[in-house]
Amino acid sequence: MNPKLQWLRNKMSSLDLQGLILTNPVNIRYLTNIDAEGILLLTRKDNIYITDARYIEAVHSTLTLYDEIIVYDIHDVSKEDYENFFMFCENVGFEEYDISYAKYKEYIRKYKIHNFVETEHIIEKQRMIKDEDEIRNIEKACEITDNCFSYLLNYIKPGMTEKQIANEIEDYYKQRTDGLSFDTIVASGENTSKPHAVPTDRKIQEKDIITIDMGCKVNGYCSDMTRTFFVGEVPEEIKPVYDLVLKNQVQTLESYKDGASTRLLTKMVENDFKLNNYDLIHSLGHGVGLEIHEPPYVSYSSDTQLRENMVVTDEPGIYIPGKFGVRIEDTVQITKFGCISLTKSEKNYIII
Amino acid sequence: MNPKLQWLRNKMSSLDLQGLILTNPVNIRYLTNIDAEGILLLTRKDNIYITDARYIEAVHSTLTLYDEIIVYDIHDVSKEDYENFFMFCENVGFEEYDISYAKYKEYIRKYKIHNFVETEHIIEKQRMIKDEDEIRNIEKACEITDNCFSYLLNYIKPGMTEKQIANEIEDYYKQRTDGLSFDTIVASGENTSKPHAVPTDRKIQEKDIITIDMGCKVNGYCSDMTRTFFVGEVPEEIKPVYDLVLKNQVQTLESYKDGASTRLLTKMVENDFKLNNYDLIHSLGHGVGLEIHEPPYVSYSSDTQLRENMVVTDEPGIYIPGKFGVRIEDTVQITKFGCISLTKSEKNYIII
Repeated sequence: MNPKLQWLRNKMSSLDLQGLILTNPVNIRYLTNIDAEGILLLTRKDNIYITDARYIEAVHSTLTLYDEIIVYDIHDVSKEDYENFFMFCENVGFEEYDISYAKYKEYIRKYKIHNFVETEHIIEKQRMIKDEDEIRNIEKACEITDNCFSYLLNYIKPGMTEKQIANEIEDYYKQRTDGLSFDTIVASGENTSKPHAVPTDRKIQEKDIITIDMGCKVNGYCSDMTRTFFVGEVPEEIKPVYDLVLKNQVQTLESYKDGASTRLLTKMVENDFKLNNYDLIHSLGHGVGLEIHEPPYVSYSSDTQLRENMVVTDEPGIYIPGKFGVRIEDTVQITKFGCISLTKSEKNYIII
Repeated sequence: MNPKLQWLRNKMSSLDLQGLILTNPVNIRYLTNIDAEGILLLTRKDNIYITDARYIEAVHSTLTLYDEIIVYDIHDVSKEDYENFFMFCENVGFEEYDISYAKYKEYIRKYKIHNFVETEHIIEKQRMIKDEDEIRNIEKACEITDNCFSYLLNYIKPGMTEKQIANEIEDYYKQRTDGLSFDTIVASGENTSKPHAVPTDRKIQEKDIITIDMGCKVNGYCSDMTRTFFVGEVPEEIKPVYDLVLKNQVQTLESYKDGASTRLLTKMVENDFKLNNYDLIHSLGHGVGLEIHEPPYVSYSSDTQLRENMVVTDEPGIYIPGKFGVRIEDTVQITKFGCISLTKSEKNYIII
């Protein structure tokens, strides 16, 4: 059996679950590599994936004998089959954050479930720690993101619109990867003051500040990087803000390691920003994996300890409404005694 | 108050609901035009939209006084506010197909709800009948789709890949609309035998058959059209299949009207296909609106009557594995005594 499913079966034993119904497609992909619409049942004896005719062929080509997963076409599953899957199971787990209330009721009836038990993000918690293959995919996505950024520094010229640059990034990724990991942010001039700016028809001007937040997917795994850079020169009023953001980004990198507290890390940046009369208005970082935002969250409200082989972002930012904003972000792998930045683009003043 | 919210308030009275929590973003957009992340509460007196700082500005610019919707930043809503929203409400409705089981439990606790009541798709059912504005948006999306198809007939040349054509369609739509309403299907040669083909690097060849299934969004409303056409000539073996599909597509158009049964309509096509030793392997059609697939479904398993101002597709298809497939699809407005095809591209043999 594949090691992730084996891990899950051990976990089920320890939780006294004799069966499990998984509906979250990201968790199913994590466990099986299947990228389709369907549900995964772990019964006493079997691992069963139920999908429909559209996906059967693709699912079969993804799986190997080694996975030990039986694939059913939903149209071939009878009322009796459903009732038999969890026969003699005292407790069957489900994903309470994913399944709708209507499905919850339907499943209890359809599978004749005795005790339907919430599983409190067991798989999401496991997904926080990446294995070698997962890290290799994220590394690759980060490398292509670095290359794309180098390309952009030569490509971007005054007169181009933010939208045009965003489209160029999308094309670059499409030719080399599974595509974007999120909608690219290209903000210029005062638009940089909005942390979640959507690309507009604004044209790049001489002496502009530009923020680009971008990432792609490789085998489903995401990268995430932000750089703030300048056309022609760095305006004097922006320098102290840029320096403060960069200092905190680098200090956070230096503090990221196995055992570090996400709350304390955030507090350090908040305090330094406050000393300079600025606020940290969003999280300092978030986990990156099959989803672009996933646990652990590096923020004051989440009190988690970083662990070896978590992959998280480090992205402090300062935004001055109506004027400008600066954010600098890397995707970072946590190690036993420190961390490795997987995105490696220049962070000192970048001038095009 | 806007007429859709007024309709919903009347509906609530008739269902003995004193409050309602809406979480489905498409239903919220339908009722309010808000396109953001948040939830809509209908309390005894007020309509309340709760969102976060990222969306506040955009939401305010969407709404008018006339909407009578109060907007809250979620960070400003206190424990007491939540408990007060539905005070003195005996029954509060929720969307059981949208809300997760975990949220269901959280809401009962947070809002101190006495009786949390399933609402059985009340809004989805209302969304099946389109008003003038909605039809105007779908018409516009269909018109641009027709124009895009005309453009393609000149653009496509042997040697181009399916992916290249799909990208051209995406660019065409991006410049004129809110973008694609679904991932474009461009299938050529034997790839046309897969109803849900994903564009590949296969190059268009002389004497190829090509199927393109495409649509865009205008103000959130979708279009959907499929045409199957030919390079240079129509191969003799394909002609009878094309003729049979077209005959059934046109006969269905002639039968679409207020009062028609979706089951009977489907049965007629199935029977005619069977007489010729083919099967109808997917639905004959589906509703089109804010979602590309929405009720009503035109299939044997759904026994609905078509009603004036429903907008549905008419899309019979025949697929011969490993050889070729033919599908012809229009987006259609149902009227009192017939229907109006909103996509109007040529359907007789199209040769490029």
